[in-house]
Parts: sequence; C-alpha cells; structure tokens
Amino acid sequence: MKLATYKDGSRDGQLVVVSRDLSTAHYATGIAARLQQVLDDWNFLSPQLQDLFDALNHGRARHAFPFDPARCMAPLPRAFQWADGTAYLNHVELVRSARNSEVPASCATDPLMYQGASDELLGPCDPVVVAREEWGIDFGAEIAVVTGDVRMGASPEQALDGVRLVMLANEVTLRNLVPPELDKGFGFVQSKPATAFSPVAVTLDELGDAWQGGRLHLPLHSSWNGRKVGICEAGADMDFHFGELIAHLCKTRNVRAGSIVGSGTVSNKAVQGSGGSMDWPKGYSCIAEKRAMETLLDGRPSTAFMKFGDTIRIEMKGRDGQSIFGAIEQEIVAAA
Amino acid sequence: MKLATYKDGSRDGQLVVVSRDLSTAHYATGIAARLQQVLDDWNFLSPQLQDLFDALNHGRARHAFPFDPARCMAPLPRAFQWADGTAYLNHVELVRSARNSEVPASCATDPLMYQGASDELLGPCDPVVVAREEWGIDFGAEIAVVTGDVRMGASPEQALDGVRLVMLANEVTLRNLVPPELDKGFGFVQSKPATAFSPVAVTLDELGDAWQGGRLHLPLHSSWNGRKVGICEAGADMDFHFGELIAHLCKTRNVRAGSIVGSGTVSNKAVQGSGGSMDWPKGYSCIAEKRAMETLLDGRPSTAFMKFGDTIRIEMKGRDGQSIFGAIEQEIVAAA
Repeated sequence: MKLATYKDGSRDGQLVVVSRDLSTAHYATGIAARLQQVLDDWNFLSPQLQDLFDALNHGRARHAFPFDPARCMAPLPRAFQWADGTAYLNHVELVRSARNSEVPASCATDPLMYQGASDELLGPCDPVVVAREEWGIDFGAEIAVVTGDVRMGASPEQALDGVRLVMLANEVTLRNLVPPELDKGFGFVQSKPATAFSPVAVTLDELGDAWQGGRLHLPLHSSWNGRKVGICEAGADMDFHFGELIAHLCKTRNVRAGSIVGSGTVSNKAVQGSGGSMDWPKGYSCIAEKRAMETLLDGRPSTAFMKFGDTIRIEMKGRDGQSIFGAIEQEIVAAA
Repeated sequence: MKLATYKDGSRDGQLVVVSRDLSTAHYATGIAARLQQVLDDWNFLSPQLQDLFDALNHGRARHAFPFDPARCMAPLPRAFQWADGTAYLNHVELVRSARNSEVPASCATDPLMYQGASDELLGPCDPVVVAREEWGIDFGAEIAVVTGDVRMGASPEQALDGVRLVMLANEVTLRNLVPPELDKGFGFVQSKPATAFSPVAVTLDELGDAWQGGRLHLPLHSSWNGRKVGICEAGADMDFHFGELIAHLCKTRNVRAGSIVGSGTVSNKAVQGSGGSMDWPKGYSCIAEKRAMETLLDGRPSTAFMKFGDTIRIEMKGRDGQSIFGAIEQEIVAAA
C-alpha cells in the first residue's frame, strides 16, 4: 500500500491512503490519524489500511478525492530517528579522490552513518530555505526506509525484517560547512539542514521483485532546473543493503518503530569511455559528485552549487513506467 | 513546576505533575496525556499544569499519590531531537591532553555538538543494558534542557528564550568504540547507547537564581557504586551557555518543540594542589576524566571502566538541600 500525510495545520498532519497509481487518496480517519501510530502498532493497524487501499484501487472507497502531492508533508513530518548511511561506496571514493583524501579502509566493512535531525522533516514540495548561497547548497537523492522495532544486536537479516516502508529522500547538504564539521569528528549538525521526503511511503509488496536482498533495483531520476542530471541505478552499486545499515545502527541499542534509515547518495561507478577515459553515463545524484568528476577529468570543478530559485526534482519509476513514490519537487529559497 | 512521565505499558507513558518536594504526584489527565503535547502547545497547556502543581504543593489535589521515581520513564520517553554539546571545554582539554591530542582551536568559539539517538530514552531507574563490558562502559553526568520552537538563525539570547524545561542526564558512552567513530568524522552511532534522564523535568522558576545567564549554578553529584566521585559545579566552568548551544544547533535549520539539548559532561578545571601538583577537588562526572587525571599524574590510567552490576547515581540539590530533579539511579546489566 501507499501512505501519505496531508497538511492540516498541525505538526503531524493527517494520514491518508493513496491509490497505487497516485491518482486518488482517502483519509485514514477511523483507523489512524498519524503514520507514527501505525508504525507503533503495525500488525493491528496495517491490515485495516490495506483494506482501504484495496477499496481505493478498485474505485470502491466512498470518500476518495484527487491526490495532490503539493498538499503532502513528509510521510513522517517529524520522526524519532533519522540515521543516514553511506551505502554507495562509489560516492565516497569519487568525492574523496577528487580532493586527494583516502577512503578509510574500514569503510569497506563498516558503513559510514550519521545521526541526522528529525524534529522537522520537509514535505516533497516544501521549499528548501537557506540563509546563504555561499554555504554551497547541494541536493542528495536517496532511498530511505522506515523501520518497526529492531532489537539491539539484531543481525542484518533480522534487521531487514524490520523494514516497514520505503521512501525517497532529498538530503540537502551545505557542502562548504562540511569540512570543519568533519574535522571535529562529531558528525553533521549545521551542514545538514532539514531533509525532504517523497509524497508517499510504500510497503515492500508495492516494489515487487525490484526489492531484492535489501536493495531497490530501479533507477533514481534527478532533474536540476528541469534538466535530467542523474538516472542512477539504486540497486547495483549499493555496497551495504538496508539490513546491514540497520544492523550497524542497532549494534549497541534498540531501534524503535518509526526510525528512518537512509541509503546515502545513490551513486554508480565510472565506466571506461571511448579512448580509455573515465565516464559516468548514469550521471549524478548530488552536485558534489559532478564537481568531483570534473576535478578528476579537468583538474578543477566547473559546476557551481545551487542558487536561490533553483529547483530539484527526484523521482523513481517502476518497470511499468509509473511513478512509485510521486516526485520530490523543491525550490531553493532565501531565508527571510 | 515539576513534570514526570509514568510507565503505563505504552511507548510514551502518562504525564504526571510532581510536587516541589517530590513527595506526591498527580496524573495530568484532562490537561494532557503526554509531555510532548504540552511542549507542542506550551502557552495553552502549561498554565493549567501550573495550577495543578500549585494545588498539589498545598495538599489540595484530590487524587494525589506518593511519587515513585522507579515508575518513571524519561520525561520524554522518546523525542524528536537529542543534541548533545560539549559546553565544558575542560572536559575536552583534560581527556585530550591525556592522550597528547590537540584541542581544535575552533572549540573555543564553536561548540562541539553531536546529534544523538532519541527514539529510545531511558527512565531514571532503567538498567543500562550493554552487550560487552570490554566496550568500556562509562557514565556521563550532564544538564539537559527541553526547548520549544526556536527558529533558524536565532541569536543565543533568542534561543535562550526557547528553554522550557531542565533535566539531568546520564549520557552513557562506550569509550572503546569512540576512537574509530571519531576517525570517521560522522559522529557517534554505536559509541553512544540510549541516554537516561532524571525523574522530573522542571521549569526555570523552580531553579530560582541558580539559573543565571543560561547556566545552572549548582553542584552535580555523581556516585559510582555508592561512592561519591564527583561534586562538580555546573555553572562556573560552562564555557557555552544553553542559549549558545541552541543557537549553534539552529544556525541552518529550525529547532522544533520537544528538542533536548545537553551540556556535555559537567567538568571543573584543575587547581594547584599542595606542592604545586595538579588537583581536581570537585572530582569527575565521567570515568574518562578520572583516567585522564591519572594519566597526567602517573603516566597511565588505573581506574577501570564500569562492570556489569556497577551502579551510578546522579543528583542535584538546591541551596535548601532538597533534590531538585530526583536521582538517576542505574545499574549496568549484561544484554541477555
């Protein structure tokens, strides 16, 4: 099934069930008002939502209305956890090789992961409000999952059983604030502003066999100012699957229902281009990678980061060509 | 007023108002079921809780019962944000000088802060469950505040206005997991298990003039296995006040109601002992500091970290000798 949260002026919004083709929606009133409630009591509430989803898909839901992504908050407008991994090592290798910095050897077996802010998560069409362009505004197209309870010390296989929902994310980074925070070693407090999520979160059955081994084997499309810049395969180069990421997170503590775990920027390895040069035919899911590619090829980056008024669109389509999660479509806006 | 959350089998517990002397309590039923609700709608709900608090203190609350800290969850059993600062630079200087590592110059003006996990926060008497003793189990006695909404870019003074409640925290660290996480630069995911909080959270008026300039000017008592190891002054050596910590957190994003912000380990500077040697008469609020002191004096640490069965008690008393927040009293327990 597909779930979204509609703006209603409250902090947590109203849970709605959305039809498979994203054309209609129906308030989940009477089952649950908020998505967190469903995650807290998944086995009891999710079958009731599934029934409503089935009725909606068959045109039998009595109070269905046209679905409007612009009215969506993040599926979880605020969450008790947002932990973002770096599951695509190519992303780290690319960005670090461009600045002649080594990738720590441990990264091959021990995923990089940071604890992100989750007290304010953005809806798919909410503006990205930033005070200063010169902080180096970058988008970051990712896959994210929402978990149920996963106990401390769970194995990757056990952790994978804890995945309840899948979403897309735009993990915005202020690139020029990253180096001092990396130097301090305490993670990212100022360089990672609020993250945005896709209009709907979907259960695994909606992904069919594109969900395999804890990975989502479909291309993730990113368009910057209307120009397609990335069609990155989310499955092939994902070095840690979601079970491994969650197991990393719960090594020393329980992970509780409603935790969001991100894949990190989806990234594909370079291929040999004509004449033996490096080429990245899939493009990029964040500008930092584009700049790293340019540095490797030309000795310096030529693409600037985002400016006020720039737009970013992130979407994933199934093998039938239909949008699975709806699109994230955000504009960069100067803080008042 | 003083607020606590009683265990009731649910994830969020039941809000109770606690008398000033911590002797009696009263369910806040009819006003709010959970503390997060109160923080979401502070101006409307807090005066009603204040009325109940006043009635309770005067013995006029009709369904009062004896207050039992052992029945408490954390005041916020799960929160949308837990960001922990390092406001006592002496803590960093002490720990780093013992391992001959420099304190980054930026630390004097730009507080160290990490984003912590908040999907499971521990009650004051909950066990600290750890899988392996050899991870180096340490307690960490801190002050923490709970905020209302603080807008992006707020000044330290504006941010200080956002403080709603004050608590104590036991920020447990698995010290031997810290160095590899520091090296990765992404913050602490595995070395910081669930944090515990004091039985009650209190409003600023309960602190009288001990709350000054965004600092709490009272000693914080830590007892390890029943032996008093720290009576550390929380006010004097706090290099960044809570307004400065919150302003750091909200530089690039809004901070939303119910965010918890920690002071970092409370720590006092060394004094000249007899014969010119260094001395720390106030003791320590975490074992890492004790080991650093030993290393500076004797060339190596002699105090081991905590073992299964060890206990830690953290408490703060007002100038009248009364416990303000109740005591955190936890035992270290091996994971099943």
